[in-house]
Amino acid sequence: MVAVGEHNKMQGVRVAVLGATGAVGTEMLKVLAERDFPLSELRLLASPEEAGMIIDYRGVPHTVMAAEADSFNDIDITLVAVSNQLSLLFTPEAVKRGSVVVDNSSAYRMDPEVPLIVPEVNPEDVDWHKGIIANPNCSTIIAMVALKPLHDFAHIERMIVSTYQAVSGAGAAGVIELEEQTQALLSGQTAEPRIFQHQIAFNLIPHIDYFEDNGYTHEEMKMLDEGRKILHHPELLVNCTCVRVPVMRSHSESITIETTAELTPAKARELLRAAPGIRVVDDPSSNQYPMPVDSADQDLIFVGRIRADISQENSLTLWCCGDQVRKGAATNAVQIAEIVAQKKMQ
Amino acid sequence: MVAVGEHNKMQGVRVAVLGATGAVGTEMLKVLAERDFPLSELRLLASPEEAGMIIDYRGVPHTVMAAEADSFNDIDITLVAVSNQLSLLFTPEAVKRGSVVVDNSSAYRMDPEVPLIVPEVNPEDVDWHKGIIANPNCSTIIAMVALKPLHDFAHIERMIVSTYQAVSGAGAAGVIELEEQTQALLSGQTAEPRIFQHQIAFNLIPHIDYFEDNGYTHEEMKMLDEGRKILHHPELLVNCTCVRVPVMRSHSESITIETTAELTPAKARELLRAAPGIRVVDDPSSNQYPMPVDSADQDLIFVGRIRADISQENSLTLWCCGDQVRKGAATNAVQIAEIVAQKKMQ
Repeated sequence: MVAVGEHNKMQGVRVAVLGATGAVGTEMLKVLAERDFPLSELRLLASPEEAGMIIDYRGVPHTVMAAEADSFNDIDITLVAVSNQLSLLFTPEAVKRGSVVVDNSSAYRMDPEVPLIVPEVNPEDVDWHKGIIANPNCSTIIAMVALKPLHDFAHIERMIVSTYQAVSGAGAAGVIELEEQTQALLSGQTAEPRIFQHQIAFNLIPHIDYFEDNGYTHEEMKMLDEGRKILHHPELLVNCTCVRVPVMRSHSESITIETTAELTPAKARELLRAAPGIRVVDDPSSNQYPMPVDSADQDLIFVGRIRADISQENSLTLWCCGDQVRKGAATNAVQIAEIVAQKKMQ
Repeated sequence: MVAVGEHNKMQGVRVAVLGATGAVGTEMLKVLAERDFPLSELRLLASPEEAGMIIDYRGVPHTVMAAEADSFNDIDITLVAVSNQLSLLFTPEAVKRGSVVVDNSSAYRMDPEVPLIVPEVNPEDVDWHKGIIANPNCSTIIAMVALKPLHDFAHIERMIVSTYQAVSGAGAAGVIELEEQTQALLSGQTAEPRIFQHQIAFNLIPHIDYFEDNGYTHEEMKMLDEGRKILHHPELLVNCTCVRVPVMRSHSESITIETTAELTPAKARELLRAAPGIRVVDDPSSNQYPMPVDSADQDLIFVGRIRADISQENSLTLWCCGDQVRKGAATNAVQIAEIVAQKKMQ
């Protein structure tokens, strides 16, 4: 029996979304509704400038509130979709007040006290969280979903990855910038970069996140560092090149994996078809392979162009695409929250 | 002393351009003029439908003629910029009439009797031609120019390449298709594919040329087959993934090379700076790296993002861009023609 005024956990959990008005936050709300997330309360938090905005969730208007420390009182799960700086500010406050935080920023990803989770890959890591669970980088999530079933079978020793990353990886402003620059160039005007370092319309920028001392970008190093942590594979070798491309949504990756055991393309297809979160799209004879326009606005990672690496034994090459705003961010975070909610509701 | 009516080879050579109205043919004329090619006659050949068109060359109007076998009478060098099918039809006719053919199609590239030349890499192969010299595939030329100085120093054993290829690689129609599709999508209409297999605007297509039985496209296999021939390196191992991207002009390539000898990034930069046909653009601290918009409409291959492969010893990763209509096709062919012309004029 539930006392009056007490939270009835059987009805669901109390969820806050911090950054509810951004590209990922907006998508989180969409995914929560789509997946019929067991909510008993939904609290939308953003910056003071956005406080007062009304956002509809399943037909019910919700007022966005300015985030402050006490915004997290009586919240079971907080989904964080803000910058590292703001996450570092608010995540400890939420945890202090008893909330489990699923953080989409990179602030806590490499913290040894914080599990880094792709639910199709390492859901068991939820068990050892201490209040914070980190959501991995978008291109890492996409690669990990595609590679986990292959790693389980053949053990991946080395990955060589070149990415083709959509502008929405830089948020809603990235999409607007690509649209505006493209329109300007088609009208004979010049394209002014604002959030990207250079023109992105009809161009490529081999630079995402900051450059580290070793010549790799931080985005490139995430594939190594996060990949090792997610796969529990500290010896994993990764060489990654990350490139921004003039695509609205859905990242693509050209991946070669060197494995300990033999892994034929046929076996890889069989493993991938049986694995969660994946759609194998691999029929060259009918021009079927993963493409960003097809993999956008849904949650599956599309995998194709699966073939033996003709330059080396025990090496396989493939091409995958996935919507980085959904599976690469919002959906993955909501999936983690579902595992947490299930445990809380038991 | 030159007899009246006889061709005076001191004034230059007699050149025919077959496919003079296409994207590459048009660029060949531009490059011939820019480079002050020693011409004593210029004959413009195309399909019967285009016969009668007037094309200006250095202020002089030239009438396009319908190509037929006798079009190649009294021509020293024929630049061929047509399909394989048409090249197979006309190249033997031109050779029979004494012309040296520089063929931009792939019809003769792997013929052991035909040298395949990148002038910065293997100009000496001109010596053994028997009437036909093949111009390599665009993405192969770009990679070979960038890699030759590194190969000479450290010996490349294996290359792993992912390409980002501009639509102009599919000719002028490719550029029009990207423009029209982009405009349609920005206006809320749908994008109809015509020459590409799928929508290319705001999308990626991991499919260029036809699929071979091993799961690689013919475009991908060209990097292996042509690379081995150009470098005189039959043991070279290549794994290539070719992707069409919504960029107007200039191909980009993400390349990892495994070498026999050690090759530091600093040494690689030094070698590349001293090599012909290359501009090293590699200053991440000031956001300087090769990009298609910068490398378009000129002849140098831009190379940057040069760094040690953190996944393996004796392995180096880089990013390069080059205008595939110019250095990847027209300029390379004209450079070959220059070597041939020099020999003819001696």
